[in-house]
Order: sequence, then C-alpha cells, then structure tokens
Amino acid sequence: MDFSLTPEQREIRELALKFARNEMIPHAQEFDEQGKFPADIFKKAWELGLVNTCIPAEYGGAGFTSVDGVIISEALAYGCMGMNTSFMANDLALLPIVIGGSDAQKKKFLTPFTQEFKIASFCLTEPGNGSDAGGIKTTIKDGGDHWIVNGEKMWITNAGYADLFVVYGTIDPNLKHKGISALVVDPKSPGIEIGKKEDKMGHRSSDTRGVRFNNVKVPKEDMLGKPGEGWTIAMNTLDHSRPLVASSALGGAQRALDLSVQYSKERTQFGVPIAKHQAIQFMIAEMGMKVEAARLLVHKAAWLCDQGMKNTEIASYAKAFASDSCMQITTDAVQIYGGYGYSKEYPVEKLMRDAKLIQIYEGTSQIQRLVMARELLK
Amino acid sequence: MDFSLTPEQREIRELALKFARNEMIPHAQEFDEQGKFPADIFKKAWELGLVNTCIPAEYGGAGFTSVDGVIISEALAYGCMGMNTSFMANDLALLPIVIGGSDAQKKKFLTPFTQEFKIASFCLTEPGNGSDAGGIKTTIKDGGDHWIVNGEKMWITNAGYADLFVVYGTIDPNLKHKGISALVVDPKSPGIEIGKKEDKMGHRSSDTRGVRFNNVKVPKEDMLGKPGEGWTIAMNTLDHSRPLVASSALGGAQRALDLSVQYSKERTQFGVPIAKHQAIQFMIAEMGMKVEAARLLVHKAAWLCDQGMKNTEIASYAKAFASDSCMQITTDAVQIYGGYGYSKEYPVEKLMRDAKLIQIYEGTSQIQRLVMARELLK
Amino acid sequence: MDFSLTPEQREIRELALKFARNEMIPHAQEFDEQGKFPADIFKKAWELGLVNTCIPAEYGGAGFTSVDGVIISEALAYGCMGMNTSFMANDLALLPIVIGGSDAQKKKFLTPFTQEFKIASFCLTEPGNGSDAGGIKTTIKDGGDHWIVNGEKMWITNAGYADLFVVYGTIDPNLKHKGISALVVDPKSPGIEIGKKEDKMGHRSSDTRGVRFNNVKVPKEDMLGKPGEGWTIAMNTLDHSRPLVASSALGGAQRALDLSVQYSKERTQFGVPIAKHQAIQFMIAEMGMKVEAARLLVHKAAWLCDQGMKNTEIASYAKAFASDSCMQITTDAVQIYGGYGYSKEYPVEKLMRDAKLIQIYEGTSQIQRLVMARELLK
Amino acid sequence: MDFSLTPEQREIRELALKFARNEMIPHAQEFDEQGKFPADIFKKAWELGLVNTCIPAEYGGAGFTSVDGVIISEALAYGCMGMNTSFMANDLALLPIVIGGSDAQKKKFLTPFTQEFKIASFCLTEPGNGSDAGGIKTTIKDGGDHWIVNGEKMWITNAGYADLFVVYGTIDPNLKHKGISALVVDPKSPGIEIGKKEDKMGHRSSDTRGVRFNNVKVPKEDMLGKPGEGWTIAMNTLDHSRPLVASSALGGAQRALDLSVQYSKERTQFGVPIAKHQAIQFMIAEMGMKVEAARLLVHKAAWLCDQGMKNTEIASYAKAFASDSCMQITTDAVQIYGGYGYSKEYPVEKLMRDAKLIQIYEGTSQIQRLVMARELLK
Repeated sequence: MDFSLTPEQREIRELALKFARNEMIPHAQEFDEQGKFPADIFKKAWELGLVNTCIPAEYGGAGFTSVDGVIISEALAYGCMGMNTSFMANDLALLPIVIGGSDAQKKKFLTPFTQEFKIASFCLTEPGNGSDAGGIKTTIKDGGDHWIVNGEKMWITNAGYADLFVVYGTIDPNLKHKGISALVVDPKSPGIEIGKKEDKMGHRSSDTRGVRFNNVKVPKEDMLGKPGEGWTIAMNTLDHSRPLVASSALGGAQRALDLSVQYSKERTQFGVPIAKHQAIQFMIAEMGMKVEAARLLVHKAAWLCDQGMKNTEIASYAKAFASDSCMQITTDAVQIYGGYGYSKEYPVEKLMRDAKLIQIYEGTSQIQRLVMARELLK
Repeated sequence: MDFSLTPEQREIRELALKFARNEMIPHAQEFDEQGKFPADIFKKAWELGLVNTCIPAEYGGAGFTSVDGVIISEALAYGCMGMNTSFMANDLALLPIVIGGSDAQKKKFLTPFTQEFKIASFCLTEPGNGSDAGGIKTTIKDGGDHWIVNGEKMWITNAGYADLFVVYGTIDPNLKHKGISALVVDPKSPGIEIGKKEDKMGHRSSDTRGVRFNNVKVPKEDMLGKPGEGWTIAMNTLDHSRPLVASSALGGAQRALDLSVQYSKERTQFGVPIAKHQAIQFMIAEMGMKVEAARLLVHKAAWLCDQGMKNTEIASYAKAFASDSCMQITTDAVQIYGGYGYSKEYPVEKLMRDAKLIQIYEGTSQIQRLVMARELLK
Repeated sequence: MDFSLTPEQREIRELALKFARNEMIPHAQEFDEQGKFPADIFKKAWELGLVNTCIPAEYGGAGFTSVDGVIISEALAYGCMGMNTSFMANDLALLPIVIGGSDAQKKKFLTPFTQEFKIASFCLTEPGNGSDAGGIKTTIKDGGDHWIVNGEKMWITNAGYADLFVVYGTIDPNLKHKGISALVVDPKSPGIEIGKKEDKMGHRSSDTRGVRFNNVKVPKEDMLGKPGEGWTIAMNTLDHSRPLVASSALGGAQRALDLSVQYSKERTQFGVPIAKHQAIQFMIAEMGMKVEAARLLVHKAAWLCDQGMKNTEIASYAKAFASDSCMQITTDAVQIYGGYGYSKEYPVEKLMRDAKLIQIYEGTSQIQRLVMARELLK
Repeated sequence: MDFSLTPEQREIRELALKFARNEMIPHAQEFDEQGKFPADIFKKAWELGLVNTCIPAEYGGAGFTSVDGVIISEALAYGCMGMNTSFMANDLALLPIVIGGSDAQKKKFLTPFTQEFKIASFCLTEPGNGSDAGGIKTTIKDGGDHWIVNGEKMWITNAGYADLFVVYGTIDPNLKHKGISALVVDPKSPGIEIGKKEDKMGHRSSDTRGVRFNNVKVPKEDMLGKPGEGWTIAMNTLDHSRPLVASSALGGAQRALDLSVQYSKERTQFGVPIAKHQAIQFMIAEMGMKVEAARLLVHKAAWLCDQGMKNTEIASYAKAFASDSCMQITTDAVQIYGGYGYSKEYPVEKLMRDAKLIQIYEGTSQIQRLVMARELLK
C-alpha cells in the first residue's frame, strides 16, 4: 500500500497548479462572464503537455498513467472547472480511439494531436437520451464504400472548435446495445451542421453545442472496432473518463476549501475572525473530510485503470462522491463568504455554478448509483 | 385549529399568482440576464395592491395581516424571487416605521406609498458587519437642529431607485446595541453617494448597491423612536420580515416543485417518463414534503405576528427551513431536468441561483440556528 | 387560519402529559428492560379517557376529534413510545369499525370498549408482505353461515392480550385489492394460535406476536362492509392512523429535545456548559426546528381528517417527516449525552431504539415517499 | 501509488475474517444479550495472533504495521464490534508503552502480553471530562520512592478483567496539559476499586466500568516518559488508535452492507426481490460508496503512521467519516430488513446499537471536526 505521489507526479502537479494559478485563475471570471472559449489558454496547456494525457507514448504522447491524468486534471480544474471541461473533452474523445482503435487508426488520429494543437469532441448524447446512452437514434448506414451518418447530437463539448469527432450511432436500432458503433468523423465533412453555443449556468467558457448529421459520409476504415462494438468501447471509455471527470469536481472542491479557509481567517464578525466560530469550523471540517475522501476514491479509480483491473464500481463512487461533495462544498463556500460570496466580484459563486454540471454530465449522480447498485448486487 | 385560507385570502393568492404567471414569469429570464430593474412590473404590482402589504389601513394600506402578506409574497416569488426581493424591500423598509414610528411619522412616510408608486430601502448592513448587526459603525451625531449621518452601507436593495431610506446608525459605539438608532432619510439628501449596482449570481433584477453617507443632515423629527431604540425596532422588524423572506424561498421552492412534476411526466428515459423511476419519485416526494412543512412554518410565524405573540423562534425556523429547503429543492430540480436544467433556456437554473441568496440575507441560516438555540435554551 | 389549541385541547394535553410524567416515565425503563406489557398503566390511561380516542360519542366515546387524538398521543409517546404503541393499537384496530362498520357493528364492538378496559389488535401484516399490503394471502372463505379464515399474520401489536381482532384476508387472491375483506374476530375463537412474543430492539413493553388462523369460524355478520371492501377500509384507516403514528414519533422527538436542552445546560466540558458550544447549539436548533415542522404536519394531517378532506398526501408527509426526524433527533440526543447517553441509566438510548420502529411500521418511510410521489404526480 | 494489499495482508485478513465468521458471529447475539465478556474468544484470537497488533517484533510481537492492524481490526469488527472493542482496548492500553516507554518498560510490560493471554485497559476518561481530555482531575503525587494516585476514571474498557492499566493523571492541575503524566499500574494494587459493569445499549459483551484510585502506590520506574509528558503520549496514542477505532466502524458497516445485499436479493415485495426497487438500490449504493471511502481514509491514516508522518488530520477524517457512515449504514440496514430488522432474531439491530458508540468514544464526531478544523486552519 502506498499513498504517496512519485517525484514525477509531484512535479507535474506543481506544473499544472502553477499553470492554473498563473494562466487560468486570472482569466476565469472574464471567460465565464463573456462565455468566451479559452483557445489560447488551451493551446498553452497543450504546449506544456497538460492535455491529451491519454495518448500513449508509442503514438507521441507523454506516456501518462491514469493516475497522472487525474492529478493533472484536478490541478487544472482548480484553475477553472469550465476550461477544464474543454481540455478533458479532448481526452474523452481520444479515449475511444486509444481503447478501440487499430494501430493504424491510432497513428492516423492520435499522433497529430501530439504534433499540433488540436481539439476533439465526443459525440454520444442525443436530445432524447441523456442518461439512457443505449437509446441512441443516430443511424450509421452502410453506403458501400463509406458509412452514412444521420442524426442529431446534443451537449457536445468543443463542438464549435473541434478538429475531430468521435460519433456514436446505431447500425440497426433493433439490435439495441449490440448495434451501436463508433466512427471517427471529420467535423468539416459535408452534411454536418454545428448548432449555436448553449447558454449555460456555468462552465461558460466551454463550448457546448448541438450537432446535426445529414447524410454525412465517413470512410469505411474510420470505424473503431467492428460494427456493433461501439457500446463496449463507450462503456470502457466511461470507466476511464469517470475518474477524470471526478477529478474535475475534486479540483473545484479543493479550490472552494482553500478560499473558505483563507476568507474565514480574514473576515471578522462579532469581533473575531469567523474561523473562530464552531459553525464555520464545522463547515470547513466537512469540506476537508469530503475532499480527502473524494481524492482517495478518484486516485483508486484511476489506479485500477492503470492496473488493467475493472474499476466500474469505484469509478462510480468517485464520480458521484466527488461531484455531490463539490456541489455541497461550493454551496457552503458561498455561505461562508456571505453576501460577498453572492457577488460576481468574488470567485466562489462561479464555483457553485460550475459544480452543478458535474453532477449531471457523464452519467448523473443517479445513474452512478444505479451502476453501483448493479455492481454491489451482482 | 384551522389550516384553511379565508375566501379573501384565496382570492388575493389567485390574483397574485395570476400576476406572477402573466406579468413576471414571461419576463423573468430577460430581466435576470440583463440585470434590469423591473420598475414597470413593480408599479403594476403596486397598482394591484400586491406590494407594501405592511401598511395599516389607517394610513391608506389595504389592511393586510401578516398571513396575507406571506401568501402574497409566496405567489410573487413564484413568479420571480429576484423581483420579489425588490418588492419585499419596500416592506422591509416600511416596517420599522409601522413598528417604531409615531402617528405623525406614519402619516408622513407611509401614506405617500399608498397614493403613489414609491420605492424604499432598508439600510442596515455594512461592509464589515453582515451577520453582526450590532456592530454598526455608521454614526448619527446630534447637529443641533438636525442629525448628521456618516458611514457606509452595503447590499442595500432598491438603493438606486429608492424614494425613502431607513438608516441605522449609532449615536455612540460605546453604547453597543443601546446606541443604535433609526432614521428615515431622503435618498436625495446632499452627501449621499449611491454606489454601483452589484453584479450578483442571482436576484439579478433586484438593484443592490452600497450607499455612502457623508455628513448627511436629517431633520430631528425623522428619527424613529428615541435615540438608542433602533436596535429594538430592527429586531422587531426582523421578526416581521423573516416570515416574508421565508415566503419568498417558499414561492421559489413551489415553482421548482411544479416544474419538476411537469417535466418528469414529459421527459422519457429508458422508455418511460422519468416520473416512473423511483429515483425521481423520491426527489419529488422530498420536495413536496419540504414545501408543505416550510409553508406551515411560514404561516405560523406570520400568524403569531398577527396575534401579537412573540414569534422569534418560529420565524427563525421558517426562515432557515424554507431557505435551506429551497436551495436543496432547486438544486434537485436542475438535476431532474438534467442537461436541459443547466441551460439558460429552461427556468430551473435561475431558481437555483436565486435560492442561494435567501440562505444568506436577513440573517444567514447559521444566524437563524443561533437564534433558535438561544430561544430553546432559555 | 388558527394555530392555537382550544382550552379543552390544552387541558387534555396537560392531563396526558401529567399522566406521561407520573405514570409512564418512572416505569418506562423497567418495562423496556423486562419486555413487560404495561397492562395496569394502559388501564389507568383508559380510566382517564386517554385511549380509544377514535370512538365517536354516539357509541360511548369522548367525542374526540382527530386533532385531539394526536395531541393526546403525542403526550403519551412523550412518556414512552413503546407503551403508546400498545395504546395506539387499540385505535388502529377500532378505526376500521368506525370507518367501515354498520351502526349495529359499532354498537356491538365499539361500545364495550367504552364500558370496560379492553384491548384490540389490527391484523393486516403477513410474513411475506410487510410493505405490500395488497399481497395478502390469508383467505376468507364462505362457509355458508359463517366465514372461514386461514392464514398467518405477523407483527401484531397487543396480540397476546387482545379481546378483539380486526383481520384482513382475501375472498379470492385473483381479485387482488378487490378481494380484500375485513372481519372482526374474537381472539379466543377455536383455531387461533397466538405466537411467542417478539424480542425487539425497542418498543419492548409493547406486545408483538404472530397469529395463525386455522379454519377459524367467524359469524357472517362480523364482516366490515361487503366482501371486497376491506382494501378501501384499510386505506381509509391508514389515512386516519398515520397522523396518530406520526404523533408518536413527535412525542419521542420532543422528549429527546427536552432532555438535550436540560442536559446541555448541566453538563460542562472545556469549562463551560456544553450548551455554550455552537456545535451543541446547532444540534439543538435542528431538533427544535424539526419538532415544530413535524408537529404542524401532524396537526394538519389530523385536521384534514376532521374536515372530512382527503389527507393522504399530508398524512404521508407527517408520518415520514416525524419518524425520520425522530430517528435523527434521538440519535443526536445520545450524542449530546456522550458516553452517558449510551448507558441504560440515562433515558436517551431507549428513545433512539424506540424511534427506529416508527420509520418502519404503518408504511415505511420509503412507502410514504411512494405515496407522496403518487399524489404529487397525479 | 498502490492500493493493493500484500499477499501477507490478504492472508491475515482472510484468517481474521474466518475467525470472525466461525468464532465470533455465531456467538455475537448471545454475548450481546447476556452482556457476557468474551474471554475465551479473546484468548483464541490471541492464540491466532490477531490481538495486540501494536507490539513491535523486538518485544515478541508479530511485527504488524498499522495498516496490518486496521485490516485485522476491520475483520474482527465484522464479527462483532462489541467484542472488537475489548480486543482493541488492549492495543489502546499498550500503545502508550510502545510510544512513550523505555526499552526496559517495553520488555517488562509488552513482552508478557506476547507470552501469555493478558488483558489491558487504557484509563484516561473521567466522569467530568469525556471530550475534554485535558481537564484530568486524577492526581499523581510524588511519594518519595513511589507515585501516589488518587482519582476516578470512567468508561474503562476491560476494567473488570485487566492485568495492566495505563493511567493518566496530573502532577499539578495548574500546569494543565503540561502536568499530565502516564503510569503503568497493576490493577491488583491496594486502593483500586473496580466499579460495577455499565449496562450499555450496545457493545454489551465489552466490559466497561468505573475505576477508583485511593492512594494507590505505583513504582517510580513505571511512569511512561517524564512527569508532564503524558499529554504528548496520549495525543500520539490517539493518532495511532483513531485509525483502529475507525476500522471497527468500517467492519460493522461492511457487515451491514453485506447483510443488506443478501437480504434484499431474498426478500420479495410487490412481486420482486426488493433489490429490484430503486429505493433499495439507492440505499445500498450509498452504503457501498461510504464503506469504500471510509476504508481508504482508514488505510491512509494507518499508512501515514507507518511512514512516521503526521496523521492527525487524516485520522480525524477516518474516525468521523467511518463512524458517522457506520451509524447511517446500520440504521438503513434495519430499514431494509423492515420489521425483521427490528427483531433481535436478525443481526442488524445489534449493528445499529453497536454503531452508535463509535461516534462517541475516542473523540466524538464533534471533537474530530474541531481537530480537522484546527489542522485545516493552521
């Protein structure tokens, strides 16, 4: 048993935290307010090697483990959960290729992301099937020498800026899960319509859009795995991505904790710093306890990935616990700040708005519990 | 024992709810987005007799009871918690006059509000004393034939539009609570600087500003009660206003519940309306149970006012329970809506942002618990 | 709207509380420890008119309203939740007769309970159908000039001491709910086997047993309503009895609150009474708030009964909120008492053990939420 | 980072779990009911090397790490939290010797525990100072060639069976923490009065008593460290023992989870196993998530001990999170069992009664939060 980080992990965490402090935090409010996509910051993070952490070394990646990945992601989310959603979306889109792609596909699709700054989107969700990923309606038809895609996707992160899509559709809705297939698609292909940017409560710097596919042709060789293997690829992707998403909640929660500690030592009420009041101490204690528990769950979920062990149960714990805790912790951080916390001049209200999304995307907190129960009741 | 509303109460509730549905809800999102003050809507509410509910009949008011007041306020908050904060602020500012004013002062200050549409502000909070109302630093000095006010107020609702201020200051900080005094002040008096509008997470249509008093002269006769009676007047005001504030949380919570019920019957996942899933049913049940309990506490707190009975304990229960429940219920409503809930095109994310403030203002949820404990441990 | 008790209600509450303090509390621990049935105390309560509150005046009852009933029950549960379970079981068994009996049946079965001290049991639950009351397996067959009952009942309160049973069975399991029928049965009838007393965590003075019916003959005229009307009678009974059961949780919770207030003022730690620590104050505040909210829900649920209005939704709120709150409050009371709270020499550990049952019987907290959701989603 | 157990750890866990299943679980109910001390079971555990895990190899111990210790303790608590309290009390009493004793003292006091089955007690708590360990009133006076101890201890586990006491007292109450000193005391010394066994809600097989010291003479050389070093020794002991105590809650929680999983698959309601209902699934998911998070916290707290790193903050997280979770999980396990859960014939009600103590002893959940806040606010 070993709970320590390696020197390399400590170093990369420091690097990422420094980036968060110097490049993200100073701009987070502005990008949030204006709903501006952080293209330059994203690119700088790429230059430092802090994104696309899932790309294996043999395809030009840094050779990060999943644990490395969540350490970096937590630090970047500490800077801004919204920007980190954009960064993470790259990994979410590239993971299906890492997991289900052939060697040739990996060379073709992954390596360019290590040579040039590029952006990707994971196109799974549809207007009618948020939590029911199996209910995909987008169709993939065999057009002879190519596939033909028709359908509509929703809540697609990075859609307006993406250089690559991974798109899930079904070759036959009657086959249910067994019909689902995954394609790598060029977002500039004819027939793709990118919708308008969603106006969201938080994660406002991340770019979220609907995407419509009208008879979009995709080369035959760009399907990941065989027809019908998309569901397995998607589920494996989620096992890998849930720790990442959870780490984003963790970063936001740690930020809310740090700000609460700092503010409660500065702000006085009734003649003493509010940190002297047990009511505040208990809120901060609860925050600290939950952040620590969440981090252990996240690390274990990622470590299981690295060991090639099944992590579905722990990944669900990590995702649900970290995101639910982040929601509570950021809501309490606003409370500790009082009126100031409610003002956009202080950073905590944004944390609370950002926190909410993580309870929803990549499997809601309710879906996570159903997954847990299924695993526990096996 | 009687839990029913009188026919008049049902009627006024219907009137207020109709107003909320027709005049407030259709505009709530726009005013929120643009942070626009709802002057016209406020005026329409005044024309219908839905604001300034605390003004007694002998001074031209409608002669509403406190119970009537919370029934109306709940309905208006159902329309928009933010707008209702503006409306309620009038009552909050006029209540000290109702409670502590002389007959002449009531005629002078209350009656005009019944004849013309006017706006008022309650100026208690200061930058350094959010929860510690006793730590007021604004000074009121005896200038011979007038009072001289110096100091700084913060988070003053309606400040940019007010026709009347009630301002709390101290005649001598060494006297602590016993030095606090209340003045009715003309916002147009020389020496008053109104700050810029605060940019807030929610209640964005309400106008919140700092106000600075630089040697502001106030006529001698415009002090409410005697010098040093301000604390008692403020505490009595809070006993009356907490049920009102709580009713605002209640209105927001009821709206979130209604929207959740409606949406969960429409939205399908896994082949059935999500209302068929116990996970959703349990969230809705919890919402319903808390809304009902909150309403009973609010009604009882107001009813005790009407009986001339001490309501401090129950008013704290009502304020804390209603606002904490509203926070939970609105957060869960976003969850029930899923990704759509996070979008500004749907009404629930605004409810969640609005809910947070009610846990903070007019005595945070923590302050309420200290009040409860003090009463229970007597 | 009126939240006050009538002078008569205040009087009967005082009487019941006095009885609780003088006759129940001094013996509660002993009866709990020995699992002894409180026959004498029950009889004294009957002599004072504190039990069988549901019997209408025209059949010799005191003519109490449902609100009166919950006021009395809360006070008796304040004395001992376990003993009150025995007392309440009489009402639970007599209510189906009040609700579904003919005038002749009421005279025959209710009046004797007003003339003599008698005990009754409500025989609904079976080994396999705790929460699923519709899944009754006990059969009622037409034996020509009598009914023949076969089956097994479980968790029957008062079974070892009862003078009257109300038994639910089905005339045809294929009819499901529409086959369920209710009989008044003499517990001394041939073929009835009363099981051994259950050894329970709490409510140890109440007598809980299984009952087996082997070809038990029941006179034709002792069926309540017509064959197949039992389900409606049972559901109506639950609407009436849930406020009662909830009031029992309320009495236990109020006792835990009072003991916590008292102990926290006496016990010192770190040089001051523990009531001076915000951590304790917050626990007590939470207790007080929940007790008040629970009481309002209980009173409203009972008041709706008295108005002849449908109270299913509110009764579920009352039952779930009061019992869940009682569980939390009693658990926290033990915490406030610390090590002493864990000792059987102090009264709070018994409260915690007793509290648990109320979340389970007469519809678990989960069943209540399903009922709420059903009503809210209508 | 490594979350795996070594093969030796897996083996010792299997051994301990087997012991729990074969030797503890079959007897747990009987010992609980009769409040019988499990001397024979304790001895068997000692024979297998499952107790006194803190004794270093150089003094005859097995050379277990702290992580080994919590693994074993969790498994034994899985068998019975009450019995495990007796077992753990040995470690709690021996730890101050391990931490603060000289080599000679370790030989004298620790080695005999490895050669023969012996029992020890940690005598810290007094009637007036449950949570305020610094407020010790027991005095240690210098009697020339020996120490003289006077005072009264309370809630002393194993007191009626102990072969060795570690007793805390003060050499001068004016010195406060700096006067506290620790002695190893022979329980058979003249002047020691062992009180009657406490009658507790749970942990009924563990032996808990008051101990009175009347001019008890203790050899000079049996003080641990120097006079005044007792506080440091006690605090270090708590850093080591809190993970142990937390692991006991963890074992109880895991047992409740396993029983809930098993029962919910067997028990049917509404025609299906209750495990098919989301309401039950959500309770089980919550249990699983909390057990996993608690285990990670416990392991990390113990691992920090093994690294010689400060674990105060994490140990507090582990203790509070594990015990609070255990309370919730066992309460919910009773709920899942329904009426059967409330019966002493099923194992879950005992778990709920046992759980409560762990929130109280060795630093209440409230004290843990104060410790957390102190560490976080540093």
